[in-house]
Amino acid sequence: MKVGARNRIIGKITDVKKGTLMCLVKVEIPAAAKMASVMTLESLEELGVKKGDEVEIVVKAVNVLLMK
Amino acid sequence: MKVGARNRIIGKITDVKKGTLMCLVKVEIPAAAKMASVMTLESLEELGVKKGDEVEIVVKAVNVLLMK
Amino acid sequence: MKVGARNRIIGKITDVKKGTLMCLVKVEIPAAAKMASVMTLESLEELGVKKGDEVEIVVKAVNVLLMK
Amino acid sequence: MKVGARNRIIGKITDVKKGTLMCLVKVEIPAAAKMASVMTLESLEELGVKKGDEVEIVVKAVNVLLMK
Amino acid sequence: MKVGARNRIIGKITDVKKGTLMCLVKVEIPAAAKMASVMTLESLEELGVKKGDEVEIVVKAVNVLLMK
Amino acid sequence: MKVGARNRIIGKITDVKKGTLMCLVKVEIPAAAKMASVMTLESLEELGVKKGDEVEIVVKAVNVLLMK
Repeated sequence: MKVGARNRIIGKITDVKKGTLMCLVKVEIPAAAKMASVMTLESLEELGVKKGDEVEIVVKAVNVLLMK
Repeated sequence: MKVGARNRIIGKITDVKKGTLMCLVKVEIPAAAKMASVMTLESLEELGVKKGDEVEIVVKAVNVLLMK
Repeated sequence: MKVGARNRIIGKITDVKKGTLMCLVKVEIPAAAKMASVMTLESLEELGVKKGDEVEIVVKAVNVLLMK
Repeated sequence: MKVGARNRIIGKITDVKKGTLMCLVKVEIPAAAKMASVMTLESLEELGVKKGDEVEIVVKAVNVLLMK
Repeated sequence: MKVGARNRIIGKITDVKKGTLMCLVKVEIPAAAKMASVMTLESLEELGVKKGDEVEIVVKAVNVLLMK
Repeated sequence: MKVGARNRIIGKITDVKKGTLMCLVKVEIPAAAKMASVMTLESLEELGVKKGDEVEIVVKAVNVLLMK
């Protein structure tokens, strides 16, 4: 599947923290860095992922902030 | 400096493409992956970065989409 | 493919306007409504879509504003 | 009122799920599709909407991702 | 009109820079601070604003980053 | 530290509401206006701020919506 976004990284889910409505999914990427995604619990269910699963991280370039 | 965002990765700028108003900055991160940021040319100037410079990538977790 | 986002609508591309760096893609959805997406020209190329193609619109729920 | 955003669709609220701090509002649009918005409970109160109310969905084009 | 967003500030447009597809609108707010919005030229037209006009700035709280 | 974003305002934290996973931080800015940021509780901890602290508000221009 093709996606209109500049940032796509494959990673592995290391943790899923569930809140009342939202959840926080931690994803480890090869760079020894960790990324995190906040989504609704419903989206998590539909996505059907759990700790250890491989996922693709997608971020639109306009949402990437650079600092120096 | 501390930042209220879950995603922060150090990378090196590999390319800067300037448009009329916006620009696209490519950043290489250790994971052998590349990320990209779109910002205004004004922000780029203020940031004062160029190809080869080290920058920090910051993304709020709510803007990270996961796919499987 | 599964996507961690609450908003997904199938539509048909009705127009692609190219700028210097970014582009504006118009998508017609069944509701007789039109939606629009701004992305980099590079993303457009990689997505490989043109006028008349069917695409899926994906929006994270946190980016949806309601007005009354 | 005029809004500087490309995506505006009228819909009807079909469900409001409240979390501790945030809420998830489901909106049905004519296309037989459903959209969803996550906002703070405070915004929901100020917006003063409930199930059955008509609302306008507003999304900036930069936050719309296309997939194929 | 009611809007489901936590951040709303009234300001005055001090400058409009047009690119090929997008534009950058500068807005002065009472705090002696300046804010800026990037939108499509089409949105600018529809909004029908020019330098000197009063506008309302709306930002969803999830898109506000805090630094210290 | 330099940041690639057009909107930066100094303010003072007036309230922190904690949810299960996310939190809502209210910030008062000189314009007699109040702004709000939603972030994960983890980000709040790392940021290490509390009521009364001075923070910098950062918003990318693409996430600023104008209304009239």
